Amino acid sequence: MKRIVLLRHGESLWNRENRFTGWTDVDLTDEGVREAEAAGELLHKEGFVFDKAYTSYLKRAVHTLDHVLRVLDADWIPVEKSWRLNEKHYGALQGLDKRETARRYGDEQVKRWRRSYNVAPEPLSDFDNRNPRFDKRYAGVPESLLPVTESLRDTVARAMPYWDCVIFPELVRCDTLLVVAHGNSLRGIVKRLKNISDDEIVELNLPTAVPYVFEFDRRLDLVRDYFLGDADRIARSMAAVAAQGKTE
Amino acid sequence: MKRIVLLRHGESLWNRENRFTGWTDVDLTDEGVREAEAAGELLHKEGFVFDKAYTSYLKRAVHTLDHVLRVLDADWIPVEKSWRLNEKHYGALQGLDKRETARRYGDEQVKRWRRSYNVAPEPLSDFDNRNPRFDKRYAGVPESLLPVTESLRDTVARAMPYWDCVIFPELVRCDTLLVVAHGNSLRGIVKRLKNISDDEIVELNLPTAVPYVFEFDRRLDLVRDYFLGDADRIARSMAAVAAQGKTE
Repeated sequence: MKRIVLLRHGESLWNRENRFTGWTDVDLTDEGVREAEAAGELLHKEGFVFDKAYTSYLKRAVHTLDHVLRVLDADWIPVEKSWRLNEKHYGALQGLDKRETARRYGDEQVKRWRRSYNVAPEPLSDFDNRNPRFDKRYAGVPESLLPVTESLRDTVARAMPYWDCVIFPELVRCDTLLVVAHGNSLRGIVKRLKNISDDEIVELNLPTAVPYVFEFDRRLDLVRDYFLGDADRIARSMAAVAAQGKTE
Repeated sequence: MKRIVLLRHGESLWNRENRFTGWTDVDLTDEGVREAEAAGELLHKEGFVFDKAYTSYLKRAVHTLDHVLRVLDADWIPVEKSWRLNEKHYGALQGLDKRETARRYGDEQVKRWRRSYNVAPEPLSDFDNRNPRFDKRYAGVPESLLPVTESLRDTVARAMPYWDCVIFPELVRCDTLLVVAHGNSLRGIVKRLKNISDDEIVELNLPTAVPYVFEFDRRLDLVRDYFLGDADRIARSMAAVAAQGKTE
């Protein structure tokens, strides 16, 4: 049996402060580290042995992966990082407080920005210092590919080539892969794997730091998928993610 | 200007216990973590920006690199791991206390094992559970290449293909590379870069967690090399490494 485990990073500083993070490179909180370690312990208990791991260019995902690998005693496995697994780019909203944004623009507009498939927030200007073209880590990416804002459709569109050409084909050679990334880049992968419609994918709220397991047969057709761990905790975590950015 | 920085991992649990470690996968001590962070701070102060990093399959090196990258805010750079950068394999000595070994076999024999170029300790048997063929991380390595003991010559011989084919050629494309590894695999690299004789290389005691910088011109000829940091501290660290494994 072949398996891919998707894992959303643990709590970050701006999750805690309830600010739009996107491509801003904020670190995990202590609670986020604990979440990552707990995910590692769960995977260890269930006997997962990974051949290779993938993560984004953002430290909240890289560090989540580091902690998981440490707990699994698998520090030595190959890790490949790609900007294509980064979180959705939130454009001019990056750094803003979610409740303040909701009060200013209304719950509906914020929900549209956060949860519609096609609508992107205001873009960053060419000269905004948050523009990724000023960040050395993206110097190897053609500027025409670098986002200054993204709808979920845009995030999925730039994540999928990496999934199609790099991660998924590796399952031919490997048995078990781990992908540690972000709510929206992982939505793209889940959308592809489960053939979920544009309208439905925006309603999927992945819990943080809960391993999401996909099993494949020899032809690499998906056989089943499930979350690892306590069902109540997972349901609470999904509800908490869904509630972010409302004024109440 | 092109640069490669070599970094030996910080103190590990078995360094502290003065046991032969070799390929045994022991972690850093808290002091080792602090050493790694200090190396990162030094590199940051001196303005080093790395394009890519290399390390071994052993967690004391992987974690040293993780801490350095965290301090440098460079968690996103590509990292490649190879068993060819592992420490010298100490055969049947792995796990033994260095002083006890010195008392039993004599300082001279231990010095020969630790410091001669051509002499390897007793090999592990085919059925010793320390034999790397039982370790899943080496499942991708042809068994005929896996050591059961090594002289320094053997260590250099298996590290050099990776240096020649992977690390050094990357300097054509990149400006600044980081290699975090072990006393003996790094000796191989230094031997190659500075054209040091077999007899002389055994006298070179690299200090732990002190960045060792090599600068190259456009033709990739070596221009100069130097340690970063306080000269007294470096001298003390090199003397401490040289004194390990003596009975006194």
